[in-house]
Amino acid sequence: MAAQITSTSNSQVKNVIALMKKSRTRAEQGLFVVEGIRMFQELPAPWIVQVYISESFEAAGPTDEVDRVCTPVIVSDKVFAAMADTCAPQGILALVRQPVWELEQMAGLSERPFFLILEQLQDPGNLGTILRTAEAAGCTGIIMSRDTVDIYNPKVIRSTMGAVYRVPFFYADRLEETVTRLKEKGFLIYAAHLKGSVSFECPDYRVPCACMIGNEGNGLSESLAALAHRRIRIPMEGKAESLNAAVSAALIMYEAYRQRRE
Amino acid sequence: MAAQITSTSNSQVKNVIALMKKSRTRAEQGLFVVEGIRMFQELPAPWIVQVYISESFEAAGPTDEVDRVCTPVIVSDKVFAAMADTCAPQGILALVRQPVWELEQMAGLSERPFFLILEQLQDPGNLGTILRTAEAAGCTGIIMSRDTVDIYNPKVIRSTMGAVYRVPFFYADRLEETVTRLKEKGFLIYAAHLKGSVSFECPDYRVPCACMIGNEGNGLSESLAALAHRRIRIPMEGKAESLNAAVSAALIMYEAYRQRRE
Repeated sequence: MAAQITSTSNSQVKNVIALMKKSRTRAEQGLFVVEGIRMFQELPAPWIVQVYISESFEAAGPTDEVDRVCTPVIVSDKVFAAMADTCAPQGILALVRQPVWELEQMAGLSERPFFLILEQLQDPGNLGTILRTAEAAGCTGIIMSRDTVDIYNPKVIRSTMGAVYRVPFFYADRLEETVTRLKEKGFLIYAAHLKGSVSFECPDYRVPCACMIGNEGNGLSESLAALAHRRIRIPMEGKAESLNAAVSAALIMYEAYRQRRE
Repeated sequence: MAAQITSTSNSQVKNVIALMKKSRTRAEQGLFVVEGIRMFQELPAPWIVQVYISESFEAAGPTDEVDRVCTPVIVSDKVFAAMADTCAPQGILALVRQPVWELEQMAGLSERPFFLILEQLQDPGNLGTILRTAEAAGCTGIIMSRDTVDIYNPKVIRSTMGAVYRVPFFYADRLEETVTRLKEKGFLIYAAHLKGSVSFECPDYRVPCACMIGNEGNGLSESLAALAHRRIRIPMEGKAESLNAAVSAALIMYEAYRQRRE
């Protein structure tokens, strides 16, 4: 079938490009874009707003997998290349609704939820890796400060390997308030901190609890760390002064998971 | 003091740029480049071949810290920007000798060495994070297959946070041969594998041992995995199919470190 869109000045195309590039546009429209066959296959059908495929993708057919969930818009290869964020696009991308989670709802997902709380994380790769690890470690959900990097940034999306669809998360406008609410609900709050009083293996993670992890360069803000029941540290040898944020998060999540598996 | 080099066609400048960009040039000359004040401060003095500072860096002086180890070459800011790999260069970079390690020497560093063996890792950020974590977890050294990403790639260097100076490592031309030699020396060899028979917390890491981790997309090659005494897996929940390579390495290194601390 011939391409339905052949110009990059088409308004749908322009909107996809804006959604790829601008965090604000994504927030305003409550949408984001996912790219590639694998990310499309794992996408929950109700989240899909529109699917775009390139002429070459359509020609290589069959496209049953796409047709089953929606009628794709076919665009010329040149237009697709302009829409895509990757250098060697696979010819399929989807416009997707952002999931909406709230604290109460997330807390109700498990009898003993385990949350990760991220303050001002800046590196898209780190956030993506944290989501991917969170799914594997059975973390109940992730809560982020408003100034954390946008989870719908295409780089984050890619590095989650699909976990963005499956791990509940939300951005908190006032993170301190959210943490206080968790404490009121009986959650134990841990803070990953270079000056923590105990090693990360010591606390009990088999109860409703949450662990806070701070910015790559500065760690947790003092006002947030002050809310924790306990500051925990990850022991380090040599002259190492800190660990990568995604590594710290992984070690803590897997320790929680280890205790919960026992 | 006025800049001694003001043209990017100067042969020293061209050589630094080539060393920044080309793995082959680095290998031929046995040199690499480190950039920034922090990376300079942590640099072992005997490794330094030459230091370059920008006119602005010199003017902002004092430069005692540099002068103590060598007489820096002052280059114009424009030339420095051309040499630097970062967008906002700090005005100091050093030409550095590559460390040379051999298996025997590395095995002699500890009574019960723990090595990480990397096969064909491709992502510079992953390798840098692994080095950084290896130092923190007290890993004795890292052995890499020849087709692993170049550790002297400026992106790797940056993400090691100085661990590249302190964690011993080498590239093995024939990794299988190296693993066989380790086995002859009495090392237990573990392979991180999606089909591992035991969880990564089960093996004893308190003896001389090594753990092999494979390529981001494909994992370990079968020929290498076949050499392991045991294949270990990292448990995963949900639909997660694998973990990021740096996260997998971190979890295993920290489990070894936990056992060794006890």
